[in-house]
Amino acid sequence: MNAPLTHLRFLLRAEQQFGSKIAVIDDVQEWTYAEYGIRCRKLATLLEKMGLSSGGRVAYLAYNSHHLLEAYYGVCLAGGVLVPLNTRLSADNIHFILQDCEAEYIFIDPEFLPLLEKCPPLASLREIIPVESSSRSPLQTSNQTDPYELMIKDLPESANLDVYKVRENAVAEIFYTSGTTRHPKGVMLTHRNLYLHGLETALAYGTTDSEVQLHVIPLFHVNGWGTPQYVTCAGGTHVMLRQFDPQLIFSLIEKHQITGMSLVPTMATRLLNSPGTNSYDFSSMRYVNIGGAPSTPSLVRKITELLGCECSAGYGLTETSPVLTVARLKSHLKSDTSKKYELLAKAGYPIPGVDLQIINAEGQSLPWDGNSVGEIVVRGDTVAAGYLNAPQENDLNFRNDWFHTGDLATIDSDGYVQIVDRKKDIIISGGENISTIEIEKVILNHSDVLECAVVAVPDNHWGEVPKALVVLQPESSTDEESILKHCRTHLSGFKCPKSVEFRLDLPKGGTGKILKRLLREEFWKDENRRVH
Amino acid sequence: MNAPLTHLRFLLRAEQQFGSKIAVIDDVQEWTYAEYGIRCRKLATLLEKMGLSSGGRVAYLAYNSHHLLEAYYGVCLAGGVLVPLNTRLSADNIHFILQDCEAEYIFIDPEFLPLLEKCPPLASLREIIPVESSSRSPLQTSNQTDPYELMIKDLPESANLDVYKVRENAVAEIFYTSGTTRHPKGVMLTHRNLYLHGLETALAYGTTDSEVQLHVIPLFHVNGWGTPQYVTCAGGTHVMLRQFDPQLIFSLIEKHQITGMSLVPTMATRLLNSPGTNSYDFSSMRYVNIGGAPSTPSLVRKITELLGCECSAGYGLTETSPVLTVARLKSHLKSDTSKKYELLAKAGYPIPGVDLQIINAEGQSLPWDGNSVGEIVVRGDTVAAGYLNAPQENDLNFRNDWFHTGDLATIDSDGYVQIVDRKKDIIISGGENISTIEIEKVILNHSDVLECAVVAVPDNHWGEVPKALVVLQPESSTDEESILKHCRTHLSGFKCPKSVEFRLDLPKGGTGKILKRLLREEFWKDENRRVH
Repeated sequence: MNAPLTHLRFLLRAEQQFGSKIAVIDDVQEWTYAEYGIRCRKLATLLEKMGLSSGGRVAYLAYNSHHLLEAYYGVCLAGGVLVPLNTRLSADNIHFILQDCEAEYIFIDPEFLPLLEKCPPLASLREIIPVESSSRSPLQTSNQTDPYELMIKDLPESANLDVYKVRENAVAEIFYTSGTTRHPKGVMLTHRNLYLHGLETALAYGTTDSEVQLHVIPLFHVNGWGTPQYVTCAGGTHVMLRQFDPQLIFSLIEKHQITGMSLVPTMATRLLNSPGTNSYDFSSMRYVNIGGAPSTPSLVRKITELLGCECSAGYGLTETSPVLTVARLKSHLKSDTSKKYELLAKAGYPIPGVDLQIINAEGQSLPWDGNSVGEIVVRGDTVAAGYLNAPQENDLNFRNDWFHTGDLATIDSDGYVQIVDRKKDIIISGGENISTIEIEKVILNHSDVLECAVVAVPDNHWGEVPKALVVLQPESSTDEESILKHCRTHLSGFKCPKSVEFRLDLPKGGTGKILKRLLREEFWKDENRRVH
Repeated sequence: MNAPLTHLRFLLRAEQQFGSKIAVIDDVQEWTYAEYGIRCRKLATLLEKMGLSSGGRVAYLAYNSHHLLEAYYGVCLAGGVLVPLNTRLSADNIHFILQDCEAEYIFIDPEFLPLLEKCPPLASLREIIPVESSSRSPLQTSNQTDPYELMIKDLPESANLDVYKVRENAVAEIFYTSGTTRHPKGVMLTHRNLYLHGLETALAYGTTDSEVQLHVIPLFHVNGWGTPQYVTCAGGTHVMLRQFDPQLIFSLIEKHQITGMSLVPTMATRLLNSPGTNSYDFSSMRYVNIGGAPSTPSLVRKITELLGCECSAGYGLTETSPVLTVARLKSHLKSDTSKKYELLAKAGYPIPGVDLQIINAEGQSLPWDGNSVGEIVVRGDTVAAGYLNAPQENDLNFRNDWFHTGDLATIDSDGYVQIVDRKKDIIISGGENISTIEIEKVILNHSDVLECAVVAVPDNHWGEVPKALVVLQPESSTDEESILKHCRTHLSGFKCPKSVEFRLDLPKGGTGKILKRLLREEFWKDENRRVH
């Protein structure tokens, strides 16, 4: 007697079991799970009234806010598919995505309306609904004046889809991968993906109803790594953060007794470099997850020390809902403290529901010896249904029952995955494979370095060689030779970058992830091909 | 790209991620997950070689032992269905079950061979395989001499089913409900049931790889409440306990640093009444779950105090894999310590994946007010596929998308379920509904009482009236009037038992659950019908 696997059941459970508890805090406003559920249902009713087709796509372009969090349930309650858009996308990309997914509606923070106005008309788009962020003016109670609030105010909250009639393999969300050089690809996550990912991440993270999660990661980035689902499943509290701001994060931790948050490494670095951390109380914090890009042992240690809580890295992809691995310590490894931070900074080991292997070019599974480098392939409950409108990409990446990640990694004998590089980022110099991530980790340990990206640049002799692009710490000064000397001390000779260039900043995606392909492109634009 | 939901994936994950860790401890023997996996696979190979048909039923009649735990994966790895048998069943019942499920093989502790010999020949049964319990003689290493060990010793361990080809809705296990007055009914649990139940109980219990579970509950009792699955899923350690023995339990807790176990109330009472508890170290204990029958606040408090760990009740049924609810404290209720033990002793609130309601005779949902009494109905991920060969019972109990439990309960405004009675046990006296459980809880609070069961007995005036059957504490003496007076102090007049009878013991099922229907039968055997 199967019930369909859908994250919408998490909302029903939270309403039933945690109805009187605070579900969402956004700036000065807060809602219980009963109230949150009603708001989700009203949004669903609005979409139904506007005529959303079954499985119709609803785009959302906004910073993290309670409205966007409501859309994670409201759109699906109306039988629609949510398509959250990255706030850093160009008008071209937005136009491509809206066209590709045939969006029927777009909810949009008015700040982004000018961007949308640059797009040519879209045949499928039936209505643009501006949604005023309640965080814009802290003392305004947006319920009173916001046109969106007026639209949903008198709508019934009782209609909507029978959650137990959902088809579990139907698409629930589409997330577009960033695609800096080509068109973005729409990753289709099903109701079943989201439900199982919710259960499995909650289990891996040990999430309970005492969770108070600060939504630092933008929700458009693979549903903020699953937080709308797993926090709701557990009956925890969501605290919204419009945009990354270290002082605001510190004060919100103290004010709302935040217990956990996720960060990308560049965010973690910015928190560490922010002043005034001594004047806040961080004692409620229980853990920080770092993901989105590889981490370093020193970064994990420093965050642990700053916030006085557990911190570990993790790894995942849009195509896998996203979390694949977490780097928590296995209990039988805890007694050996010497490699604690080394393990915590790795990608980690698979969460329940994920089967992960590394394979060579012939598709053979490689040993877990900490040395063999192979492409990560995964199968399990949270592998997406595929890319939208991209049969070739699907054939290439979703094949032989495994999803091929394009990431190169080792796995050690304890089962911990270490990412070596993106298949496309790895540098092949004079026939040797060089991991850009390995070099970056070494350079990031230089005390004067704030951020770093290593890319391949053309070289007449070696074909291609590594080049480091470095942002220095505020008020630091150092020179190329100091960085290169540091590299020669900690890296094999052939892996050392041949040159260092200092930059004031590095281009980043919506989550703060450095866009290495964009940097690489600068050096290859005059070449006939992209590898030598 | 769905992977099939099957608990067999828990074994694969444990082998991969926790291969070098101790998986199972049984008396003086222990096995890592790598070794445990090999033993499961060898059992599968044995069954394949013997010619087990696809979906063929394999019965197992044994106390808790590593062999039985291996069967939980080994039988399914061979494409078979495991049918664990209650060790307290009569030869008649065993014969009925083996015939009903068309068992092809039975693995059996030699102790039960005489029982099997009483059964008439069975057409389906192809082989009886005696399995010597390694716990019989503590210093014997059973691997050397046991015929079963010789059978599997040289078998390959690599063959077996491709786990990722399993059909998730195929039946994996059949458990027979006790059926004291009628034929037992076989409850069919699917691979999907077991997988989701594993994830969802691990999440509800907060199970991690640091878990060291003592298997006190017989595994034949709905897979020991899911422990073979959720402990393996988390990568925890299983410690086997052949039969209930308080001193052995205390010493195993100390010796193996047990972190958790499940008990039925009569087991908990026996632990509390056992001497010498001061001489053991229980500091590793983190929780005790009490289920299988309703609990009392004082029982929960005393276990908490005895073992120095969390203790809470729970509720479930064979037909629901089994766990439905746990009575852990919701985080927002923790500040009110006054009703702590009252809440912890209730059935609790649904685990993720379970939707539970109470309904009246017309099938309407009743309010969660703590007063309205209705039949519990459930839907969700862990509701069984139905009863084997029992279409009428299926139509009756699995209908309108809900499983009808036959249990009467209230739900309070915090969402906590309180079991009032089995629909079949409730006493209707002069038109008033009287809960036998409510009376039992009051009597169990009398300081001289060890065990108690209340049943309806025929009465010419009232139709039926409650009668208490009481076992006194060792060396206690009291009389009927003292018990009745205690009842009159704590119960409404019409609910008080009309008589008390003292017994030396009460009949119990394989888990220690008191068989009230058997007791009731004594008083009705001369009546024309079973209610007045």
